[in-house]
Amino acid sequence: MRVNVPLEKAYLLLNHGPTLLVTATDGGKPNVMASAWNTALDLDPPKIAIVLSGESHTRHLIDRSHELALSIPSSEIADLVLSVGKTTGAEIDKFDRFKIRTFPAKKVGAPLIDGCLGWLECRVIPEPRIAKTYDLLIAEVVSAQVVKGMFGPDGWIFAPKGVATIHHLGKGRFAVPSRTLIAKKK
Amino acid sequence: MRVNVPLEKAYLLLNHGPTLLVTATDGGKPNVMASAWNTALDLDPPKIAIVLSGESHTRHLIDRSHELALSIPSSEIADLVLSVGKTTGAEIDKFDRFKIRTFPAKKVGAPLIDGCLGWLECRVIPEPRIAKTYDLLIAEVVSAQVVKGMFGPDGWIFAPKGVATIHHLGKGRFAVPSRTLIAKKK
Repeated sequence: MRVNVPLEKAYLLLNHGPTLLVTATDGGKPNVMASAWNTALDLDPPKIAIVLSGESHTRHLIDRSHELALSIPSSEIADLVLSVGKTTGAEIDKFDRFKIRTFPAKKVGAPLIDGCLGWLECRVIPEPRIAKTYDLLIAEVVSAQVVKGMFGPDGWIFAPKGVATIHHLGKGRFAVPSRTLIAKKK
Repeated sequence: MRVNVPLEKAYLLLNHGPTLLVTATDGGKPNVMASAWNTALDLDPPKIAIVLSGESHTRHLIDRSHELALSIPSSEIADLVLSVGKTTGAEIDKFDRFKIRTFPAKKVGAPLIDGCLGWLECRVIPEPRIAKTYDLLIAEVVSAQVVKGMFGPDGWIFAPKGVATIHHLGKGRFAVPSRTLIAKKK
């Protein structure tokens, strides 16, 4: 079951640096790619920054629609994240090929990916020179959802050894935050 | 013991989204702050993007020196990361107050923090409008080091339940990636 996250808490979905699935559509076939290079950028209204190659098919769809969606995958679908990261939507329909189930977003056209732990819907803030020079997009978050029970007022709640977000270390190896440490101010 | 990381592999230090310590100096007293909002931005030459409030003391030092250093803290010093994130260098000398040991960087003036797992030295690429509008800085990585034995050709190597990077979930709670999952392409 999914629940809405208040927009001023949306940054907490990305605060710990998870690897993401990025979806986009220009009204035709949507596409999906993986992203490790992203960060929260602002609190309220929430913004994000994300690096997406100007040569990628998903980026072409975003450049035409000015929208994207971020799905935050769980450790249960790491194989899928690697697979969509290693293929291009210019050549195959990844949704068909990898049997990816989706559901409609609330505010944007891009589909959201089932089996994930959280979802952010975003509208691109036009910064064409930065997008062209650095492949860096800036976007406002217009909707945020999480799986019920995994997110509290202070952010993600991961059970020890339980399902959690994944964090790409490189070459298909993902770090999984299976331990939570409570720090104390000195 | 510290070893150099080839610059084209420097992005792997940040690829999995760790929380960082940021240091800077303008030639006088240095300062240190915490950063969860950052990302790798490019491979070669390596670049990073980092969100640093225009009102922070560290940012003032960076705006004057056009340099910064990133130290990647280990789970053993999470209390320190929370503490430097909750105080301002405009009021106290955090290095004195929290007994932070440092050592000299190779290419920049900012000190590097002892007890961390990796270090990146960066020179700011001037993008004044983006810095002012979004508090977002873009910088080139000019030196990268890691603790010997914790980083291989494909990135970080974290032993199960061992020392690892920390990833701020919110309110002093840090996720620790003490499990590594090897994904397989479908």
